[in-house]
Amino acid sequence: MFVDPAQERAMRRALALAARARGETSPNPVVGCVVLDAAGQVAGEGYHAYAGGPHAEVVALREAAGRAEGGTLLVTLEPCDHQGRTGPCTEAVIEAGVRRVVYAVADPHPVAGGGARRLAEAGVEVEEGLLAAEAERVNAEWLTCTRLGRPHVTWKFAATLDGRSAAADGSSQWITGPEARHDVHELRARCDAIVAGSGTVLADDPRLTVRGVHRHDHRLTPRRPLRVVADTRARTPLTSRVLDDEAPTLIAVAEDTDATALEGRVAVVRLPRDDGGLDLTALLAELRERQIVSVLLEGGPTLAGSFVAAGLVDRVVAYLAPRLLGAGPAALGDAGVATLAAAHHLEIDDVTRIGTDLRITAVRPAVETPTRPVAARRET
Amino acid sequence: MFVDPAQERAMRRALALAARARGETSPNPVVGCVVLDAAGQVAGEGYHAYAGGPHAEVVALREAAGRAEGGTLLVTLEPCDHQGRTGPCTEAVIEAGVRRVVYAVADPHPVAGGGARRLAEAGVEVEEGLLAAEAERVNAEWLTCTRLGRPHVTWKFAATLDGRSAAADGSSQWITGPEARHDVHELRARCDAIVAGSGTVLADDPRLTVRGVHRHDHRLTPRRPLRVVADTRARTPLTSRVLDDEAPTLIAVAEDTDATALEGRVAVVRLPRDDGGLDLTALLAELRERQIVSVLLEGGPTLAGSFVAAGLVDRVVAYLAPRLLGAGPAALGDAGVATLAAAHHLEIDDVTRIGTDLRITAVRPAVETPTRPVAARRET
Repeated sequence: MFVDPAQERAMRRALALAARARGETSPNPVVGCVVLDAAGQVAGEGYHAYAGGPHAEVVALREAAGRAEGGTLLVTLEPCDHQGRTGPCTEAVIEAGVRRVVYAVADPHPVAGGGARRLAEAGVEVEEGLLAAEAERVNAEWLTCTRLGRPHVTWKFAATLDGRSAAADGSSQWITGPEARHDVHELRARCDAIVAGSGTVLADDPRLTVRGVHRHDHRLTPRRPLRVVADTRARTPLTSRVLDDEAPTLIAVAEDTDATALEGRVAVVRLPRDDGGLDLTALLAELRERQIVSVLLEGGPTLAGSFVAAGLVDRVVAYLAPRLLGAGPAALGDAGVATLAAAHHLEIDDVTRIGTDLRITAVRPAVETPTRPVAARRET
Repeated sequence: MFVDPAQERAMRRALALAARARGETSPNPVVGCVVLDAAGQVAGEGYHAYAGGPHAEVVALREAAGRAEGGTLLVTLEPCDHQGRTGPCTEAVIEAGVRRVVYAVADPHPVAGGGARRLAEAGVEVEEGLLAAEAERVNAEWLTCTRLGRPHVTWKFAATLDGRSAAADGSSQWITGPEARHDVHELRARCDAIVAGSGTVLADDPRLTVRGVHRHDHRLTPRRPLRVVADTRARTPLTSRVLDDEAPTLIAVAEDTDATALEGRVAVVRLPRDDGGLDLTALLAELRERQIVSVLLEGGPTLAGSFVAAGLVDRVVAYLAPRLLGAGPAALGDAGVATLAAAHHLEIDDVTRIGTDLRITAVRPAVETPTRPVAARRET
């Protein structure tokens, strides 16, 4: 199918604009938008910068003003059709006299979706699918969360080239270099919650905060992702660093556990058990209730194994150090796989050298999406 | 220091020429050469194609003929100064009237080395070190072998992203995809010997041959690296595939082992023991005796651990599949490391996607080499 190079260029620009706000818009998606005038020149551009702020389309149309009339609007996500904190984008598009709308990915949201049909009904030419794969990628957390009804989960681990996440004596600080450790803080800053198991809290007493990364929201409040401890038996010591006031914390315990001591200090949620541990689906549902769209899972091997076994890991970020240990625990514990044919399959999404280490990002194989169906014009 | 761009270009070309013969020149180094005439134009080029064939300098000078006079010769390795199967290159350079010689890496060979001094003594301008790091890389096997007096060792393994080289039930075929498996045959075709432990022979009955790679020497004989089994207790079954006639095979047993049955079938060498296994230094010395410059070590974990522990691994090639197992053995067994601070350090040299998998090449941190010392002109 022929793709107008000017439109593809504009969509790439819209994707770059969307990417600017990655990790800043939760619980909303990231969206970028470019408006071309009737002659195909860029007339306006914008992105959704924070939840409650104006939508990308509105920002771009405002900049384009009268030049939007008869023009083309390119946007990374299907324009919304509902009245939220801001008016529906479909209305703004129609009012501006835009002739044609090209969006990359359909909005799977049950309430906000349907914008394409609304536009087509109003006589706007509508096309779906331009650079859809790239748009899926920039919005992976929100799209996964909206489609599956649970937060997107990234599991992060560090290991040696021979797959050890600690030495035989348990020493694990630091397997990777300072650049990789800084990169983990960038990962943390882009997520809504950081999840660790009580085993990790007991062994390493991590802070699970964002440090050294200067990210903040539109009110200049630093990003402080919710710290979540999966703590079936309420073993988190009251002196743990995760209980300090550097960031909010939630301790998830089994519903039949006595967590009285913790309840006096920190938010505690009671969840059903599953196979001896916590029911992770219930944990994610609980986080979804709290507007959490993206979760960063940080060790240990038991909790990671349970998430993988339950099919709840959407992305793996592995920091590999070029070292060899030959002994010591692996990063991933029992994931319910007995034989090679049953291994959990991923796709390598990105490989980047971080200092002297390697960062490998792998994702769940892409869900089949139609590449460029054109939303047919529909008559009312 | 100022580097003439024409000279750097010529040296890059010489490196590319040298690389053409990688894995074909054993037990000789790979060498590439470019001759610039007095006006700086390329007058001749060549590389050393096979042991016993003409040296790179000779090929390039032959092509340059009279244009070499007053010109510059760029070569990836210091020109040799000894009469081997071919005459000394220094003599050819001097006779051709070359004004200036630039070489990347000094020849560490006790007999062939010393060419730079010989040239300087004859009044030729000599410079060492241009693109030395690249020249070290292209010739890593031969340089390591010559400097350390033992074959260069590459350890290859395949594992999942979580560091498992087999599943819990032992299934390991195939962790990586067909492209990665083909790539292993390319690795094999470039080495002189393939080493495996008897545990691997007993468990997997591998053929350890080069298949699907159409490499051959200048006599059109296919490359058939020596198959070596480290078999302390002479456990290799007489029905093993490594004993077929697809390639030569050497079984290394402990000197106090009864290997009568094997000795009737295959070449057997008796080596001292070390820590219960074979003395690997003695094994490599034995291989060096047999003109082996480069060894590819292919599992299992015990043998790999012993090589790593003994500091005998120069390069690691890891094929990582984007899969998760959560259980199963790691690729590397006990390597004498108890704590993280004692881990064996490497440097990442290359990362390449091979099909759906990742190939990570890591090497022993570079030996400190002077980057661009100029070989002083010496008077006799």
